[in-house]
Amino acid sequence: MLLNFRHNINGEDLVIAVAQDHETGEVLMVAYMNREALKRTLETGMAHYWSTSRGRIWLKGESSGHVQHVKEVLVDCDMDAVVLLVEQEGGACHTGYKSCFYRSIEGDELRVREDAVKVFDPEEIYGDG
Amino acid sequence: MLLNFRHNINGEDLVIAVAQDHETGEVLMVAYMNREALKRTLETGMAHYWSTSRGRIWLKGESSGHVQHVKEVLVDCDMDAVVLLVEQEGGACHTGYKSCFYRSIEGDELRVREDAVKVFDPEEIYGDG
Repeated sequence: MLLNFRHNINGEDLVIAVAQDHETGEVLMVAYMNREALKRTLETGMAHYWSTSRGRIWLKGESSGHVQHVKEVLVDCDMDAVVLLVEQEGGACHTGYKSCFYRSIEGDELRVREDAVKVFDPEEIYGDG
Repeated sequence: MLLNFRHNINGEDLVIAVAQDHETGEVLMVAYMNREALKRTLETGMAHYWSTSRGRIWLKGESSGHVQHVKEVLVDCDMDAVVLLVEQEGGACHTGYKSCFYRSIEGDELRVREDAVKVFDPEEIYGDG
């Protein structure tokens, strides 16, 4: 799939990937994909991303089990971003919230949103080390 | 607001910004914001972005009139991405669709989604030059 991998971060050519709950429309997380991560996502139906901090492809849920089953992949007008419509196992966020976007800006502060849902205890999933 | 403007594109420090319809949850577009674009967005209630191609701040809708009224700004766990919940005037996409994500990947092709809504004629808004 010839998307426009125009976002170059540390020498890797990437598209932005937004994961959205396929039923509720909640935005779960934002990450990057390189060409191979997109290919594996399309081939396996499980979301794979490019980790800019670790410099490698990452199967979402590979350590937590909280994988994302991809129902549909949307592409934007200039083909440099995708939206993955997913069924999220457990939570998308390592903090235990279903969505990484569990806070909003209010004045000069960040507040946890009233409808933010905590779905797991991160210490049980990732350990406390 | 001290977000993590960690995405460095052409020397500019940026966060990723996802605009989402505040009522339907439809993802409308993805762009970047620098610190000043976020500040202007919070101060004015109108979405401002950083254009990586033009190297300047851009009020969404400055030429088309299709501004985004920002209802809420969500922040993700590592503070390097925001979701803007917006009321979109007209359409977000320069093609005339309400959302830039009007196509999906099907096999090796891109197809226009059945529920994609064309809300304006780009030639009328931007001219044909």
